[in-house]
Amino acid sequence: MQFHFDVEAMVKVGVIGATGAVGQRFVQLLAEHPWFELVALAASGRSAGKRYGDVANWRLGTPIPENVRDFEVLPTDPKQVDVDVVFSALPASIAREVEPRFAEAGFVVASNASSYRMESDVPLMIPEVNPDHLGLIKIQRDARNWDGCIITNPNCTTIVMALTLRPLMRFDIERVYVATMQAVSGAGYEGVASMTILDNVIPYIKDEEEKVETEAQKILGKFDGSKVKNADFSVSASCHRVPVMDGHTEAIWVMMRDNPTIEEVRNAFRTFRCDEVKGLPTAPEKPIIVHDADDRPQPRVDRNAGRGMSVSVGRVREHAGGVKYIAMGHNTIRGAAGASVLNAELLVKKKMI
Amino acid sequence: MQFHFDVEAMVKVGVIGATGAVGQRFVQLLAEHPWFELVALAASGRSAGKRYGDVANWRLGTPIPENVRDFEVLPTDPKQVDVDVVFSALPASIAREVEPRFAEAGFVVASNASSYRMESDVPLMIPEVNPDHLGLIKIQRDARNWDGCIITNPNCTTIVMALTLRPLMRFDIERVYVATMQAVSGAGYEGVASMTILDNVIPYIKDEEEKVETEAQKILGKFDGSKVKNADFSVSASCHRVPVMDGHTEAIWVMMRDNPTIEEVRNAFRTFRCDEVKGLPTAPEKPIIVHDADDRPQPRVDRNAGRGMSVSVGRVREHAGGVKYIAMGHNTIRGAAGASVLNAELLVKKKMI
Amino acid sequence: MQFHFDVEAMVKVGVIGATGAVGQRFVQLLAEHPWFELVALAASGRSAGKRYGDVANWRLGTPIPENVRDFEVLPTDPKQVDVDVVFSALPASIAREVEPRFAEAGFVVASNASSYRMESDVPLMIPEVNPDHLGLIKIQRDARNWDGCIITNPNCTTIVMALTLRPLMRFDIERVYVATMQAVSGAGYEGVASMTILDNVIPYIKDEEEKVETEAQKILGKFDGSKVKNADFSVSASCHRVPVMDGHTEAIWVMMRDNPTIEEVRNAFRTFRCDEVKGLPTAPEKPIIVHDADDRPQPRVDRNAGRGMSVSVGRVREHAGGVKYIAMGHNTIRGAAGASVLNAELLVKKKMI
Amino acid sequence: MQFHFDVEAMVKVGVIGATGAVGQRFVQLLAEHPWFELVALAASGRSAGKRYGDVANWRLGTPIPENVRDFEVLPTDPKQVDVDVVFSALPASIAREVEPRFAEAGFVVASNASSYRMESDVPLMIPEVNPDHLGLIKIQRDARNWDGCIITNPNCTTIVMALTLRPLMRFDIERVYVATMQAVSGAGYEGVASMTILDNVIPYIKDEEEKVETEAQKILGKFDGSKVKNADFSVSASCHRVPVMDGHTEAIWVMMRDNPTIEEVRNAFRTFRCDEVKGLPTAPEKPIIVHDADDRPQPRVDRNAGRGMSVSVGRVREHAGGVKYIAMGHNTIRGAAGASVLNAELLVKKKMI
Repeated sequence: MQFHFDVEAMVKVGVIGATGAVGQRFVQLLAEHPWFELVALAASGRSAGKRYGDVANWRLGTPIPENVRDFEVLPTDPKQVDVDVVFSALPASIAREVEPRFAEAGFVVASNASSYRMESDVPLMIPEVNPDHLGLIKIQRDARNWDGCIITNPNCTTIVMALTLRPLMRFDIERVYVATMQAVSGAGYEGVASMTILDNVIPYIKDEEEKVETEAQKILGKFDGSKVKNADFSVSASCHRVPVMDGHTEAIWVMMRDNPTIEEVRNAFRTFRCDEVKGLPTAPEKPIIVHDADDRPQPRVDRNAGRGMSVSVGRVREHAGGVKYIAMGHNTIRGAAGASVLNAELLVKKKMI
Repeated sequence: MQFHFDVEAMVKVGVIGATGAVGQRFVQLLAEHPWFELVALAASGRSAGKRYGDVANWRLGTPIPENVRDFEVLPTDPKQVDVDVVFSALPASIAREVEPRFAEAGFVVASNASSYRMESDVPLMIPEVNPDHLGLIKIQRDARNWDGCIITNPNCTTIVMALTLRPLMRFDIERVYVATMQAVSGAGYEGVASMTILDNVIPYIKDEEEKVETEAQKILGKFDGSKVKNADFSVSASCHRVPVMDGHTEAIWVMMRDNPTIEEVRNAFRTFRCDEVKGLPTAPEKPIIVHDADDRPQPRVDRNAGRGMSVSVGRVREHAGGVKYIAMGHNTIRGAAGASVLNAELLVKKKMI
Repeated sequence: MQFHFDVEAMVKVGVIGATGAVGQRFVQLLAEHPWFELVALAASGRSAGKRYGDVANWRLGTPIPENVRDFEVLPTDPKQVDVDVVFSALPASIAREVEPRFAEAGFVVASNASSYRMESDVPLMIPEVNPDHLGLIKIQRDARNWDGCIITNPNCTTIVMALTLRPLMRFDIERVYVATMQAVSGAGYEGVASMTILDNVIPYIKDEEEKVETEAQKILGKFDGSKVKNADFSVSASCHRVPVMDGHTEAIWVMMRDNPTIEEVRNAFRTFRCDEVKGLPTAPEKPIIVHDADDRPQPRVDRNAGRGMSVSVGRVREHAGGVKYIAMGHNTIRGAAGASVLNAELLVKKKMI
Repeated sequence: MQFHFDVEAMVKVGVIGATGAVGQRFVQLLAEHPWFELVALAASGRSAGKRYGDVANWRLGTPIPENVRDFEVLPTDPKQVDVDVVFSALPASIAREVEPRFAEAGFVVASNASSYRMESDVPLMIPEVNPDHLGLIKIQRDARNWDGCIITNPNCTTIVMALTLRPLMRFDIERVYVATMQAVSGAGYEGVASMTILDNVIPYIKDEEEKVETEAQKILGKFDGSKVKNADFSVSASCHRVPVMDGHTEAIWVMMRDNPTIEEVRNAFRTFRCDEVKGLPTAPEKPIIVHDADDRPQPRVDRNAGRGMSVSVGRVREHAGGVKYIAMGHNTIRGAAGASVLNAELLVKKKMI
């Protein structure tokens, strides 16, 4: 890290929805975080009161952090969680109800749930892409009379795509086609049965195409001080599940009015940086890594690049009307838990926590 | 089968390149064929002279046909193979040299190799799609002074796509985007190492995109009695390998000038038939099966539909400029061995063998 | 089939628990059965009243039989099912309650559930192994005052092992060790999550080792006209789940007091036949297939041998005290649905239905 | 690390056979090693002279170390490699010829190859198990008149088993049965084709059972100052390949004359430590981790425990004559590259390098 940013005191944080696939990623990322002290884990009534190590059924490839194993799981109740920030890995239907209660009670809710992403006063953030959208928080607090707030990150598939579209905005994007090959972890631990996916592809993920087709325009839209004006390109998505554990791979066609060359596109990817994230512990050195080899990026080999926070691209090729390329990113780190953590880090840096 | 077509006598056939993944499919399909009597299996010098059952390393999910197990493998030499038709499962580099020698010696070569597909006097056939292209054979024989001939089927990925594009031609196709999720069997038995593909996607298949982008226009082109005039839409392909044994899944966007509704497109798929293939033993009852369920077609569940010869489609949806849908077909049956067998059956029906 | 056995009239049959993984196998096997006419499919209240094709979520590699797709699913109630035989694919906890109600109401219940396997008056059958145990049915009817009866087949893992132990009984088996590599289909459609098993082995299957360690002695025991005296060898099992769709592979060590040579053991496997099953439509020509190749049997390649009813063995090797070998069989055909069907066929042949 | 051991100066090391699966693990482990400075990478003539990053086809889940990417690959020639220790990831057939040339030229050869493991004057080491076997090096040097030496680690499967047998030696082991479920990485990058292993188990690994059945007795044997007297129990192994990337799972039955209780066995595992490895950077805090959960250990979840150097055990159960349990370890770290590195660290600590 070239730039060092000091926090004066550790920020106390908790995770709600802490036992699932994304919840465990939050725990993994926060257990040794330099700014955040993980002190509370909440989950559904079934788990509350029990030892986290007993109910989490830990399935990540690195051992459960020792200091977290013995945490008592709390109920998902603002009164019982004593922290400044809650990271939400709740399912959308529950998040819709629960997150406002936390925001109202004064918590910063950094949410991975889809429930509030498209609300006009809720920032839908990728810190390297639209840090200025943080301005929506003031508007949200005023409108809803909250002490806390909700800040969201996009759907995992959208994040991987939108991060790579950002540097192409300069070429005047007109239209995007994206076909995805998504990892099973995106559906949670019980989301995809083995008999469904072994030796198979499932060409459908509920509500996914709709999310991918609508979220990117908000993220890449302009914040004018009071609201976000959507970017005006269209996205058409076809979403598929493949037998991969982690890492979403996306084949993307982008039509651009300015007709850049392949080398201009590769260069735009390679040089993409954002000063606003300098010094954030979770920000990768390179948000986008450009591969030269024909057969990259690959999820198993590249998903952990930048500790899971870099998006890898490759195979930039021409087609009539634009370029096509492959993008791949870690769906539960850059695409979920890491995204929320990075959002919260930006708030800390901006003194908004 | 509603229509019955009688052959007067069994046609003697052989397979060259008989030990590989496609070669074994040929053996499986021909072992009990009602018109073809499989009498010769040829392979590389390494295997010649040995028992087929010993060298084939049979890996299909049904047992090796008993009557074939003890065949002595022959060298790939027109003088040593006494048949009327040879089915070629040779690698392209070898096929380029070997197939003309067979054609010159008077054999009908029904080839799955890519070597001669794009030659202007070689028919590139899907019997349900362009049966009239058979007319090229006379031109080929005249031009090359051959007693035999070469007839080819498209690349596996192209077949699945082109079969579904055929009924959409009436809506005036302008452009096609296709992202594929291809099975490992397409690369042959040693083609994809397990460490390459387990828990992974490989976003590259050598030469595949080029084939998909050029073959469809020839297949869907018009034969004017002397040559084929290519269809005038463009195709842009992105090809990927996934951990699936058999069955290529394709996400396809089609832009059409006539702007059909979804129901018109589904109906075009559903009613697609070709009289020319009536009575051919390998022709499926329905060349295209249309699924209603959101999560279909799937390779593991649908690849054997129509004994591996039907292409399954589903999820027909709108997008600006056209429709998108999913197509899936068995890559080594409809996409390779079955395609060549169907070609040869059409020749028999047309009294060209 | 060398021996032909004629049934005078088709026997009407139904399946209870028809929508799950084993239930679908029953439907697949019975849809075109020469003796049995499938007329009723029952399932839980949730599915009753609906179309089978809509609720079954068919996932086998061959299409759902056309004639069955439109069946209305019945409730699991003896009064609403008008058949002679019900095949039970119920979970054990439900089978315990439901099966006696059917037996009492006069049905023959051919059950794959574990609930009654070890009851002293219930036959635990593998037709090629212990056809005389059918004698228990009379005792069961007398004891329980039932017009119908319950006949069971062993656990899938036990069947594969016990069928191969039967021909070794002549060498006086003393002890058996078995380590299994079991397919996910054994746990039912939702039994094993993809995040659990992709790139993984689960070294535990609930209650499985206990079943394998106790069932074989009953199957291989002697029926003395009134009860079965267990065989007196011990079995120690270690059971593991692997990322395989169908087919249980088992590494088996057998200690035998008579110290047979490898060739004697292979010969015992190879020549194993049972006259009692002659003419049964589901009985495979060879109950045990002996492989010579070092790397066989394999589940993907060999599971469909004998239409899924043959058990394949290979790699018979010496070790101090006996032999070790590999056995593999299709767990939902020979190990479940096919086993029950074969049991029922034996009853028909014996005029007990 | 409770104990700190200081090296006076970095030891220069190289890897021969650096491009394969084990070679890449060596590079990964050595790139940031506190005692060893990786300065040379050698490979076959085909790769020599090229950039390591270009020829290695890096496939580990963490990126290729930056400082190594640009190394020029050297030929496998003692004259061209200027280091103190070479780590050998050569195939056995090549190692047999090459390793003595390095040893003769004065190098310490820490080898993962099988070629010299069973030679009576070559130590076959697991540092926690038989550190005193290092005494063989003096004997080897005297006998062969070498300035350097060869020190070997066992086969990957043997290491996992032998490490868990060591603490059970106190109960007087009589016999061992082991069934393995081995990862594909054990066969190298091109070792197992995807069409071989997807949805499959291969019940055979060439020469593996022989290695497992003979190596453990040497490792667990007694060194009397001049030679190793083998331990006197027998091992019978059945080895199988499963679709797992890394991590060998083993079902082990151990017959012990002293008949320990399950709790004594678990306790022996849990308390197993070896003072000799204190302070070695690669030695894990716990050589054996004992799991309580029924469904552990699992390769995907537990293979990275102790940075890949801990062996995980679980499911200790009784059977007539002893106990059975599951052991699992990372086959290319603890079972290969990490094993060689630990061997070399022990030599450094003992001032033998």
